[in-house]
Amino acid sequence: MPLSIYSDDHYMREALKQARYAFDEEEIPIGAVVVLDGQIIARAYNQTEKLRDVTAHAEMLALTAAANHLGNKYLTDCTLYVTVEPCVMCAGATAWAQLRRVVYGAEEPKFGYRRHGQLLHPKAEVVPGVLADECGSLMREFFARKRK
Amino acid sequence: MPLSIYSDDHYMREALKQARYAFDEEEIPIGAVVVLDGQIIARAYNQTEKLRDVTAHAEMLALTAAANHLGNKYLTDCTLYVTVEPCVMCAGATAWAQLRRVVYGAEEPKFGYRRHGQLLHPKAEVVPGVLADECGSLMREFFARKRK
Repeated sequence: MPLSIYSDDHYMREALKQARYAFDEEEIPIGAVVVLDGQIIARAYNQTEKLRDVTAHAEMLALTAAANHLGNKYLTDCTLYVTVEPCVMCAGATAWAQLRRVVYGAEEPKFGYRRHGQLLHPKAEVVPGVLADECGSLMREFFARKRK
Repeated sequence: MPLSIYSDDHYMREALKQARYAFDEEEIPIGAVVVLDGQIIARAYNQTEKLRDVTAHAEMLALTAAANHLGNKYLTDCTLYVTVEPCVMCAGATAWAQLRRVVYGAEEPKFGYRRHGQLLHPKAEVVPGVLADECGSLMREFFARKRK
């Protein structure tokens, strides 16, 4: 992992800002950033409702934006920060991108990739539970409002 | 499944046309179509090289195009035809889209979703092996040329 003056918490707070944009737009509040050498090179939040497209998860949009930024589809030395455990689709995308570090916030026992085994790149380091309470609270608040 | 005067072979030949476009553009030759009520509503081929984006698999592009066409992110009554067994990412995308029928051509023992278990929608019907020889031949020819 490249050295950075910032901690994982710092970047996860940036992902949380993205998640709050999603919340404000009545999207399931999940946000993501991609970091290379300490710099955020992509930011995105879930837009499945606005785009009417199930593939428009925060992670997918962030990976595409990061690849566009680099002009390279491989994000080997990047870290993905995402507020919620990625789903199968997004985990598969990080594997194709050869992403070596995935940091997430809240667990997602039902739709998270982990219950299906190891779907990330074989060399990927996984850091779960960063700012998990804040990331999870935002999700719970969203669904509590939806149920009203 | 909606009735159609055409067989699965017919739609797979349309997916194969897409795969050949990919081949001609030096992309891994995988093509896909999405069918609703016997009508093809989306066609796509793998564009990961051109777009420098690992998420630009034929299936992903076809699912997004189909959702755009319908103005609905759920493709419940659609069938996806794809020339090669989908990967984990694409299988996950079909599950989110609630796609109930997936027809594919050649097996993909290394990168296919099946070795990771059941990743499609729980109610999805899977029809493997449709025009498997033609679909697989195109892949083998592509990689044989690459190795030269």
